[in-house]
This record gives sequence, structure tokens and C-alpha cells, in this order.
Amino acid sequence: MTRFARAAVIGVGLIGGSFALALKTARLCGHVVGAGRGPANLKLALERGAIESIAADPAAAVADADLVLVATPVAQFSAVFSSIEKSLKPGAIVTDAGSTKRDVVTAARSGLGAKIRQFVPGHPIAGAEASGAAAASAELFQGKRVVLTPLPENSPETVGAIESIWLACGARISRMTPQEHDEVFAAVSHLPHLLAYALVHELAGRPNSAQLFGYAAGGFRDFTRIASSHPEMWRDICVANCDELVKELSRFSGKLSHVREILEAQDSAALEKLFAEARAARGRWLNGDYEP
Amino acid sequence: MTRFARAAVIGVGLIGGSFALALKTARLCGHVVGAGRGPANLKLALERGAIESIAADPAAAVADADLVLVATPVAQFSAVFSSIEKSLKPGAIVTDAGSTKRDVVTAARSGLGAKIRQFVPGHPIAGAEASGAAAASAELFQGKRVVLTPLPENSPETVGAIESIWLACGARISRMTPQEHDEVFAAVSHLPHLLAYALVHELAGRPNSAQLFGYAAGGFRDFTRIASSHPEMWRDICVANCDELVKELSRFSGKLSHVREILEAQDSAALEKLFAEARAARGRWLNGDYEP
Repeated sequence: MTRFARAAVIGVGLIGGSFALALKTARLCGHVVGAGRGPANLKLALERGAIESIAADPAAAVADADLVLVATPVAQFSAVFSSIEKSLKPGAIVTDAGSTKRDVVTAARSGLGAKIRQFVPGHPIAGAEASGAAAASAELFQGKRVVLTPLPENSPETVGAIESIWLACGARISRMTPQEHDEVFAAVSHLPHLLAYALVHELAGRPNSAQLFGYAAGGFRDFTRIASSHPEMWRDICVANCDELVKELSRFSGKLSHVREILEAQDSAALEKLFAEARAARGRWLNGDYEP
Repeated sequence: MTRFARAAVIGVGLIGGSFALALKTARLCGHVVGAGRGPANLKLALERGAIESIAADPAAAVADADLVLVATPVAQFSAVFSSIEKSLKPGAIVTDAGSTKRDVVTAARSGLGAKIRQFVPGHPIAGAEASGAAAASAELFQGKRVVLTPLPENSPETVGAIESIWLACGARISRMTPQEHDEVFAAVSHLPHLLAYALVHELAGRPNSAQLFGYAAGGFRDFTRIASSHPEMWRDICVANCDELVKELSRFSGKLSHVREILEAQDSAALEKLFAEARAARGRWLNGDYEP
């Protein structure tokens, strides 16, 4: 497949750094240039061999690049797209790693102008609590899903090229519309994060919080693991996907009202049925019975 | 410390089986007799060396026992206490492993009559997804908390004896009232279980459930791990602690309303503050800064 003389990664964190490492493991690219806000993190990415050089800014990073990944927090995408538009080579292809897609497409259309056809939006489903170049790994995308939300402006060749790159990184590819993407991830990712953050915040704010946390055990630890996620990143995701997330919150609140009713009615049979059905569904999921 | 010639475990599952194994590792008891509903599970407990003999029923199990642990699902406690009252030796001491305490105390008072003074209610905080004697381990209670909720009828010696046994099993001991216990665990255990079950059930009931689960990843897996818990056990817990659990559901629903408001107002700063405060509180908890 096509090799790339030079790739640029804007935002060399867990995702950006892992992408850079995976490109080299797959022998797809010999030189990755990195750009980002944190000099210490970029230096670390260089030391770890994720990137071969550091650019002063995103515009300089993309100037000679044939392949570009934008992997900053999504709130920075507008600025990044605007700044790279001029220096982006006509033949270069661009993708991203944003956890929301409608806002990314809006930012890209506005920033890239006619070059929007060179940009195929993507979302690698490979988050982790850990962040930064320190946590990057060439193996991160192995067996993970990458959702691409191609645009009408993209040529089939451009979409195919981006697809091949993610496949070479070990990922499995799905395609959706940006709207469909944002609906799905509001339900299975953004809502759970909000619930975990809300529960921890609720208990931490009580006068007896030390007692409460003192008795919290393994179930609580796993349930709230995602409440240790990056606050800035999740602020951006929640704001970007606000409408779909509010819909999911409404539905979940409705579900909780129903649960409360059967609880207050002491309806043991209905409670056990709900628990057993949920457990069975989760078992089917773990078993790989659900495929999108 | 006191050794026990014979101990009885009613319900030889994860907790009961682990208690039996831990007693022997601590050389506190040479013969544990088991009773329970499942013949196959009891046979396995025998084969694994958790128990030395199987009794026909709880009454027969406690007949010669100096120490009794009741570790069945809590809905069976009334029947168990009523059935053992007659055959329970005057000098025997009894504790339990129920996840709720007010209902257990009510059942014990009603079933044990004057022998209530021999019963010290307890709750080892050592649950797991796995269940049954197959999952039992002598190490299960190492470093875990056991909450005792002593009764006015208990002598200090009886409470002390039960405390020593759990300490010998490797546990750390706390004392609370049954009411206080049920309030604390409604917040840090029962509510998270209900939320996890509710979310999985909500998504499983949608027409696009296969798509939704198909994109659920590691965060979802950990958040919903407790939705794979035992439906019958959690039905009993939720019904037994219904009043406190409904209070916690109300408070959490209030919190979600607040989150929804700041989300709809697109109040980025308030969202990030909430996320950062939750993350910091969880970090303090993981760091061991919260002690009851």
C-alpha cells in the first residue's frame, strides 16, 4: 500500500502518539512530525520515538506532510483546521480522532474550505484513563474499532486510503453518518461518563463523604473508573454533543422513574426480571453476540 | 484465641465458602458443616475442603456448632433463623453476611427469640461477580472491611468473639448501627448497582441495541460490570433497603437535573469544574485519603 514520506500528528497524546508509533510499526511512514501545546509532552514523544521532529505550530507541521492526524481535544479543532488550511498540500489526506463528529465536521468545513474533500472524519474507539505521549503504544488500536464518517466531498480513493491506514494500525473499520455516530456514542459512552462523574460528585459533596468513600469497594471503583477521565476532554465532548446527550439523559431519567416505581411498589418479581434481563444482555455483549 | 470444635455455615457460596476456608487457614476450627439449597454446590464445597460435612438442613447444621455464619441471600434469613432457633446451642455465637442490616435484625429478633443475644449482625464488604463455592477463597477477606452492627442484647464478650474471628480471617472491623449501615450502603453500593442495571436494560430494550452494544467499549464494560451481579441477591437487597435506596435515587435524580441544566446552558466552566472535582475526589479515595 501507499507509503507516506512524511506524516503530521497534531496533538501527540495517547491517541496521536499511538497512531504515530503504529504508522512506523506498519512501515507506513518514516518521519512523523508532531505539534501540540505541551513542550514537555512533545519532547517525551520524540524521546519515545513516536515522532521524529517537532514543528513550531500545526501549519508548519502539515507543510510537507502527505498524511495528517488531528488528535487534540475537540474544542481546539476549529483553530487547528483554520491554521493548517493554507499550508496543507493538495495531495495530502487528513483524518482526526475526535470523540464527536458533527462539531468536527462543522469546524473542518469552516476551516478547510475547499480542502474539506481531503478530510475524512474518524473516531478510534480506544480511549483510556491514561493520557499523554507517555501512555502511547503501537498496539493501542489492535482489534479496536475506528468509526469513519465520510463526507459527500470525499472521493472513494481518499476514504479508501484512510481506511487502509487504520487497518494497517490493526483496527476494524465501521462507517456511519456524523449524526448516527453522535447518537450512538451519546448512549454508550457520553452518558455513562456523565453518570459516573455525577455520582462521585454527589457523594463527595456530602458532609459524611469520608465515611461514604471509606466503605466504597470494588463495585464502586469499576463503576466510577471513567470519572477519573480528563475533565477538559469530557467538557468538550459533552458540550459538542449536548443535544444528543440531553436526549439520553431524559431517557435514562425516565428509566430511573420506572425503577423507582417498582421499587416503591416492592415489586420483587419486576425488579428481579429487570436485573436478570440486564445481566443476560451484558452476558451476550461480553460473548460477542452484538455486532453493529 | 478461642478455637471452635465445630462451625456451621448456612449458604456455602462465595462468602460462606471463603469464611469456612479462612477459619481453617487461621486454625480456628477443624470441622465446618455446611447447609444450603444446592446439593451440587455443597458437594463442590466438600471437595474443595471448605466444609467437612453436609447437613440435611440449617437446624441439623447448627445442632453441635459453637459458631454459625448465615450467608444465604437475605430473603431466606427469616426462614433460616426460625428453623435454627430450637437446635442452637446456648453457648454458640452467630453472625451473618447479609448486605443489608435492618431487615436482618428484624428477621433475627423474630426467629431467634431470646437467643437474639447470641447473634451479632455483620456485613463483610467482599462481594464479587463470581458466586458459589467454586469462587470461594481463604484470602477473600484479607484487608477487606467487615461492618458489625451489634445489638443492645449482645454482651461485649460475644461481640468481641465475633470481631476476633473476622480479624483472624484478615478483615478490618468497623461498627455502626443497622440504620447507619443501610444508609451508607444505599449510597455507595446499592445505588450504583441499580444505575448499572438500569443503563444496560435501557439500551438492551432499544431497536438498535445490537448497534449500541457493538460500539460499547472499555469504559462501558467497567461501568456496567456490577450489572452482571446476581439478580436474586440484588432483588432482595433492593427490597430490604427500599426506603434508603429510594432516597438515594431521589438525590441522584436531583443531581442529574442539575447536570442537565448546566449542559443545556452550555456552561462549559461549570461542567469542567464538576468533572474536575469528581476526578479529584476519586483520586483522593484511590489514594486512601478517605477513612470512615
